[in-house]
Amino acid sequence: MPITRKEEEVLNEHFLINSYVEGFTVSQADLCLLKQFTSLPSQDLINLQRWHRHIASFTEEKFIFPDSKSNNLSIIQNGIKVQIMVNTSEENVAIDGNDFKVVEDDVVDPWNVQAASNKGIDYDKLIDRFGSSRIDEALLERFEKLTGQKPHHFLRRGIFFSHRDMHRVLNLVEAGKKFFLYTGRGPSSEAMHVGHLIPFIMTKWLQDVFDVPLVIQLTDDEKYLWKDLKLEQCNKLAYENAKDIIAVGFDRNKTFIFSDIDFVGGAFYKNVLMVQKHVTFNQVKGIFGFDESSNIGKIMFPAIQAVPSFSSSFPFIFGGKKDVPCLIPCAIDQDPYFRMTRDVAPRLGFQKPALIHSTFFPALQGASSKMSASDENSSIFLTDTANQIKKKINKYAFSGGRDTIEEHREKGGDCEVDVSYMYLQFFMEDDDKLENIHQQYSSGQMLTGELKAELIKILQKLIGDHQERRKNVTDNDIKEYMSPRPLNFIESK
Amino acid sequence: MPITRKEEEVLNEHFLINSYVEGFTVSQADLCLLKQFTSLPSQDLINLQRWHRHIASFTEEKFIFPDSKSNNLSIIQNGIKVQIMVNTSEENVAIDGNDFKVVEDDVVDPWNVQAASNKGIDYDKLIDRFGSSRIDEALLERFEKLTGQKPHHFLRRGIFFSHRDMHRVLNLVEAGKKFFLYTGRGPSSEAMHVGHLIPFIMTKWLQDVFDVPLVIQLTDDEKYLWKDLKLEQCNKLAYENAKDIIAVGFDRNKTFIFSDIDFVGGAFYKNVLMVQKHVTFNQVKGIFGFDESSNIGKIMFPAIQAVPSFSSSFPFIFGGKKDVPCLIPCAIDQDPYFRMTRDVAPRLGFQKPALIHSTFFPALQGASSKMSASDENSSIFLTDTANQIKKKINKYAFSGGRDTIEEHREKGGDCEVDVSYMYLQFFMEDDDKLENIHQQYSSGQMLTGELKAELIKILQKLIGDHQERRKNVTDNDIKEYMSPRPLNFIESK
Repeated sequence: MPITRKEEEVLNEHFLINSYVEGFTVSQADLCLLKQFTSLPSQDLINLQRWHRHIASFTEEKFIFPDSKSNNLSIIQNGIKVQIMVNTSEENVAIDGNDFKVVEDDVVDPWNVQAASNKGIDYDKLIDRFGSSRIDEALLERFEKLTGQKPHHFLRRGIFFSHRDMHRVLNLVEAGKKFFLYTGRGPSSEAMHVGHLIPFIMTKWLQDVFDVPLVIQLTDDEKYLWKDLKLEQCNKLAYENAKDIIAVGFDRNKTFIFSDIDFVGGAFYKNVLMVQKHVTFNQVKGIFGFDESSNIGKIMFPAIQAVPSFSSSFPFIFGGKKDVPCLIPCAIDQDPYFRMTRDVAPRLGFQKPALIHSTFFPALQGASSKMSASDENSSIFLTDTANQIKKKINKYAFSGGRDTIEEHREKGGDCEVDVSYMYLQFFMEDDDKLENIHQQYSSGQMLTGELKAELIKILQKLIGDHQERRKNVTDNDIKEYMSPRPLNFIESK
Repeated sequence: MPITRKEEEVLNEHFLINSYVEGFTVSQADLCLLKQFTSLPSQDLINLQRWHRHIASFTEEKFIFPDSKSNNLSIIQNGIKVQIMVNTSEENVAIDGNDFKVVEDDVVDPWNVQAASNKGIDYDKLIDRFGSSRIDEALLERFEKLTGQKPHHFLRRGIFFSHRDMHRVLNLVEAGKKFFLYTGRGPSSEAMHVGHLIPFIMTKWLQDVFDVPLVIQLTDDEKYLWKDLKLEQCNKLAYENAKDIIAVGFDRNKTFIFSDIDFVGGAFYKNVLMVQKHVTFNQVKGIFGFDESSNIGKIMFPAIQAVPSFSSSFPFIFGGKKDVPCLIPCAIDQDPYFRMTRDVAPRLGFQKPALIHSTFFPALQGASSKMSASDENSSIFLTDTANQIKKKINKYAFSGGRDTIEEHREKGGDCEVDVSYMYLQFFMEDDDKLENIHQQYSSGQMLTGELKAELIKILQKLIGDHQERRKNVTDNDIKEYMSPRPLNFIESK
């Protein structure tokens, strides 16, 4: 029996709040419901559309759907019921009720990023897999219209490429309402690299153009629970990293930075408990891949990363208001935390946070993985000297140039795989100049050495300026940014 | 091959720190090691003795031992190795590697107390099962010698019947050192009953005779995670219950009472993280019976109840000292939390807390279960009027008297099952008078009505006095007891 329009509407309402038919992960129930569709869902039902695209993305591969909890499921809204026939004798039956296996595919979770192909992560596929939305021209036009500013080049160039609910945030802005920004960092090392700046640069731009408060979470507790580090080390690293974050130039009247180890408690702990009560071990197992030998700190931690999304976690900023909407700029690998957060939020009477997701910053050696702070030649660190930057780029940056000058002049360089060119996309603001370099390098007019020289110049200035600003960050600055205090937050009616 | 003396010593040292051969729960490995003993362990090796008695207690019944993690285990101390042959093809093989099943036995854990027989819990068996020690005459004599006071009647009458490391605490006292007391309450109801006073009465006596600081944890977070209550309700109940606790009369210069919801954070959260990092889901599953559908708050909670055992959780009291020993008076059902705490403590560089355990306070209807705050006729509440107390005792207190006066005069009453007599054991301080009542009631000279009249008189006074003291507890008193502050704590050298 095909799905009727009335049933479609019921499902659309269900998927407004829920990501899946049941629970926090995909299951047989989703597959079975998908099969009940004989054609694509109606265009106007966007939540149902998103779910359909998301589930369909799994069926294109040898994906093994976990069991659903029940064989007799139905979704009911306003008295109308959609029955889901879960038939576990069909193909794609789970071999393990809990293993969320993707065969021959990119792995992207908060602790692992591994591309299946050497072209790097397939971000289009990731959008379908995660069920988020692409940042498209229409969204960029709204950005420009509302802020009166050209969208940041991270947005224009697809470095931030995916979002959840960004239109809802812009609707609020249009209506004269405020939101707040939330981003963070796991301080596992003193040495931050340029890639770590990406979410902070984006966040600063958003703070500037929207004039909104910002909270920055340093998850020193997470690093302690996951890494072989002492608690005091992780805590110290949080304060070291805070200096780099402050040096990015956030508005000191609108920014609160906190270490979890020092800050968890009070209203924040209350919200942590609320999230923890509504998430089971099975759910974090499905979302994060925890198992029975995981320590109980890891198991509870997702609640700690979830609750800065809720304005009531910061009563000194929002005066106890629980409905100030939140926008989270982050790398796409952090999305599982916020899928969980978005699923649990409505049940706690909170707003779902909106997100914008960035791609990964490539290692000097190539685009198939994230950079590693433990391999000093894999990246440019914020502590590198001008000379180190020059040497590293010249020696390690993977080149798309040809083997000989003659061949290069004839066939041109390959910007698709050239890491120096990729870095320019991140850090060269001038579109025309970048386009010019692309054209000259691809045609063979520009040699690899010349391309690298352009990048070296930009990075030396970027990092030199950063080091100068960081040097000027005083203990008093840290105290100020990291004190729980009212921020300059005026909520218009 | 029988165990040699040298090997025994290795094992004794292992069991000083560990409760079992591996991990936090009994396993096949313990059973196999037990079988390697051809005679009882040497008398002087008390840790090995305790382990042997504990494991042997399981073999007397149809107990199913969970699998051990490995088939090839050894315990090594100072270069000497004891090999343990785990042979899983023998009898007593686990049918489920994780289910900790006891067949036909008392159930005692923090959420369930159920006696297998109507005589109530078999406390002797529980001591062996839990691997604790009985409070015996020798210990009572030490109490008296060190404090110069007759031990409290809860100790003399076996109401507090079991301990862990109490001799170590008394050794410290003997050496002129200080310890601190830790007890608590889960505030699930405004209406506390007389049974809830037992640990607090014991704790007050210990505070008085040893002149030591005391921390009292109100686990409002636990109640929120387990019960169908709102967070604010649980928090409010904590403050209501605090009034009753203050009314017990603790030294205001030496007592800190805290609500978890309001207090968790800072140094306390640091210790919580340290415990959480060193305990896995498998361990809390084994100890507390959690499963995969348990919420992640429950799973992390044991760390919250563990850390008040460590003095560094209260820097404002102990000035950051991490080695002040702790003594915990509690009902025996709370022991699993502190078995876990004692196992994890040495790995974190903390002292194991010592414990003294009480029996359960019987319901009016009989001794086979704990009282329930939800059944108002199962117990005497701290809010009951003199008249209600009289009516409840007369109507509901299970009697060991005979059916007719003639039969009673002839055969006498049965103190073993008479709840009024049991209550007198808790609340009548005068040993001679109690003994006299026992003699008169057993012989038939005293009738049930007369016995009940004695109890009614005592409870009316106890509760009347309590209500008077509680009425006088001001908001300022609550603020004072519940402020993190230095206590009157002088650590002698």
